[in-house]
Amino acid sequence: MTTNHDQFLSTAAAQMKESAIRRMGGVLAAGRDIISFAPGYPAPDTFPWDELGEIAAELMRGREGSVLQYGPTRGYRPLLDTIVAIMAHRGIATRLEELLVTTGSQQGLDLVARVLVDPGDVILVELPTYVGAISAFRNQQASLVGVPQEADGIDLAALDETCERVRREGRRVKFLYVVPNFQNPTGLLIGLDKRQRLLDWAERRDVLIVEDDPYRELYFEDSTTEADVRPIKADDRNGRVVYLSSFSKTLAPGFRVAWIAAPPALAAKFEMAKQAGDLLTGSLDQRFVYEACRRGVLERQLPILRAHYAHKRDVMERALRRELGTSVSWPNPKGGFFLWLTLAAGVDADKMIPRAVERGVIYVAGEAFYVNGEGHNTLRLSFSAPTPDQILEGVRRLADAIREEFRQREQAAPSARASTGS
Amino acid sequence: MTTNHDQFLSTAAAQMKESAIRRMGGVLAAGRDIISFAPGYPAPDTFPWDELGEIAAELMRGREGSVLQYGPTRGYRPLLDTIVAIMAHRGIATRLEELLVTTGSQQGLDLVARVLVDPGDVILVELPTYVGAISAFRNQQASLVGVPQEADGIDLAALDETCERVRREGRRVKFLYVVPNFQNPTGLLIGLDKRQRLLDWAERRDVLIVEDDPYRELYFEDSTTEADVRPIKADDRNGRVVYLSSFSKTLAPGFRVAWIAAPPALAAKFEMAKQAGDLLTGSLDQRFVYEACRRGVLERQLPILRAHYAHKRDVMERALRRELGTSVSWPNPKGGFFLWLTLAAGVDADKMIPRAVERGVIYVAGEAFYVNGEGHNTLRLSFSAPTPDQILEGVRRLADAIREEFRQREQAAPSARASTGS
Repeated sequence: MTTNHDQFLSTAAAQMKESAIRRMGGVLAAGRDIISFAPGYPAPDTFPWDELGEIAAELMRGREGSVLQYGPTRGYRPLLDTIVAIMAHRGIATRLEELLVTTGSQQGLDLVARVLVDPGDVILVELPTYVGAISAFRNQQASLVGVPQEADGIDLAALDETCERVRREGRRVKFLYVVPNFQNPTGLLIGLDKRQRLLDWAERRDVLIVEDDPYRELYFEDSTTEADVRPIKADDRNGRVVYLSSFSKTLAPGFRVAWIAAPPALAAKFEMAKQAGDLLTGSLDQRFVYEACRRGVLERQLPILRAHYAHKRDVMERALRRELGTSVSWPNPKGGFFLWLTLAAGVDADKMIPRAVERGVIYVAGEAFYVNGEGHNTLRLSFSAPTPDQILEGVRRLADAIREEFRQREQAAPSARASTGS
Repeated sequence: MTTNHDQFLSTAAAQMKESAIRRMGGVLAAGRDIISFAPGYPAPDTFPWDELGEIAAELMRGREGSVLQYGPTRGYRPLLDTIVAIMAHRGIATRLEELLVTTGSQQGLDLVARVLVDPGDVILVELPTYVGAISAFRNQQASLVGVPQEADGIDLAALDETCERVRREGRRVKFLYVVPNFQNPTGLLIGLDKRQRLLDWAERRDVLIVEDDPYRELYFEDSTTEADVRPIKADDRNGRVVYLSSFSKTLAPGFRVAWIAAPPALAAKFEMAKQAGDLLTGSLDQRFVYEACRRGVLERQLPILRAHYAHKRDVMERALRRELGTSVSWPNPKGGFFLWLTLAAGVDADKMIPRAVERGVIYVAGEAFYVNGEGHNTLRLSFSAPTPDQILEGVRRLADAIREEFRQREQAAPSARASTGS
């Protein structure tokens, strides 16, 4: 007799859902001519293949057992030392006992949730926020409460009001999750002044801040300087901030090497959770990343990547303006991978997907990034992976789909407008 | 003001402890002349360096973006196809929708716990059992209930009695966790007949079996045949068994590539949990493993590894007999990495560690593998990583420590005996 598996599922598992971005992967796998603005993939033609080939050859010739062996859960010691130096460059004094290498920042988010969250605990997040964080936090049965953003990032008055309201309801607020630099999905940058006020707020309200910073190195030099991306963690004197960053966007995501810096008491718990979670991050992967840092490969990549992605951003913005004029709007991305498009109120980006796929383009509908059900007329475009030509063609296709959607809405109005809320 | 971090910990995190095996790592790191029988590391001199060097060179020369890019959570498709073939060779017909690549089997255990276990749910385990499984299950706040083992593996009568008792107490039994081939830590093999009866039992009692099978390929040909290691999963007609295996013990653990085969409904949940857990297993690592399979490297390694570890087992057994005679006992390992030593009743292997370290040898005290507080007079020796000479010297040191411990106990008897229970 076939087993009934549902009866064995945990409460968390029964509620798990496939992520919206990954679902888009299925559309692509079908193999049609589709230009993808969906996943936030780095451009593979920027990967430093030759240098990595040399590193690989030397590592294998060296026959040093630890390259392919189990190793410490905290991470490969020379890589940890390297990360201390990277952190120092970002203005963050870090001791080894605060550091942990993670299997991508996604594991970092998962560890943060498992170590800090009991079912029902509240995590405050930006509206919209990174879907991978939403998944990791929801899997831990966190209750996610959103706070609106302004042009310079999260709205502090709304943040404080939300926190106090949640507490009056008798719920426990564990932390605020923010992506201060070129946020996924909006591309927004939190202002420097606001960063300091966020830290003060966390002190005053006795809340932790989880600062997720994967895009920090990818500031576009026409509009941003290194001073603008100073982490909140840099001014954290009292152990308020758990800081996450990664080599995925600057070296390559296939290595799955990222890190957490946290107060030692928390770092020790992250280590224990990781120990039971996957023992260690890939030894060879850590070696590749370490060698790429030691040999200056990463350092040489950074200005190249900044120019590369700034150019693609330009191509996408120009194409959008040309094709769609003022019928859509977006905050100008000053770094990172993403452009966040807002359509006319009432247009549903998720429902528009079949039309876009038919035209040969995909994106991620914005509602997946909202924990409060909003964002139906928004969508995220990644300009990072496609070539400039693909961006031009993709925007043309997208513009066709959007115009058609607008036209159809106008024909069907006003009844269509009334039915879009949900 | 320094933040009080304890108030932010989840219930699970507040209870997390460092693993006994990993703690031994700290002793080693101190850099003294210590021979380690502690961690179950494969022998690094068996790693196929040259072949891996060739694979690395070709992968980097090929400049195929997906080698270093994000990829599907389920795993690299050609590797999944390869695993289907490996499974077929083990007698298990597997469809793609049942498969998931994991970041080591440790992640597999973690996913199993997260998808199947709510706090307080019961998992039945062997006495003793793998510490990594204990950690993963405890982090999910499972209640672990132990079942004794006989010479041919878990005691079926005790298993059924335990299961029924737990149910009478109103608790929910989610699954039985077993390592049927060359168990970590005992080296025991579950008899073929007993495997079938385990499956029948699981059907009758409506319980799942989680079958963890990392050592299957490492059967020693003087005492075991391939027929003896047939997985329980091979006879699973109704989706009762979740099967885990790995490339860590046969290719190299630094790649962190393993897999789960499970009924599709569960595999889908494992995928969602993994998606939020680390997005994907390292792309380059998966390529290395796939190429090693495709080029026959893994196939060529297996007989070499069987002979290699069988020889080390011989060296260790002979040395133990010579040095300690009948004052200690162990089940003859017919495969795998481990030898499970039982000392005279009342000797405490954990308390003996400082003496062993002083002599220059370490092991893992057996109590860490027992979920019921037993096993104080047991210890696990790994013969896999040290060279034959190191094994000889290490056993001499261990024998000195044990003899000294015995002597001191005799001098102090009977009061010492009375104080060892805890």
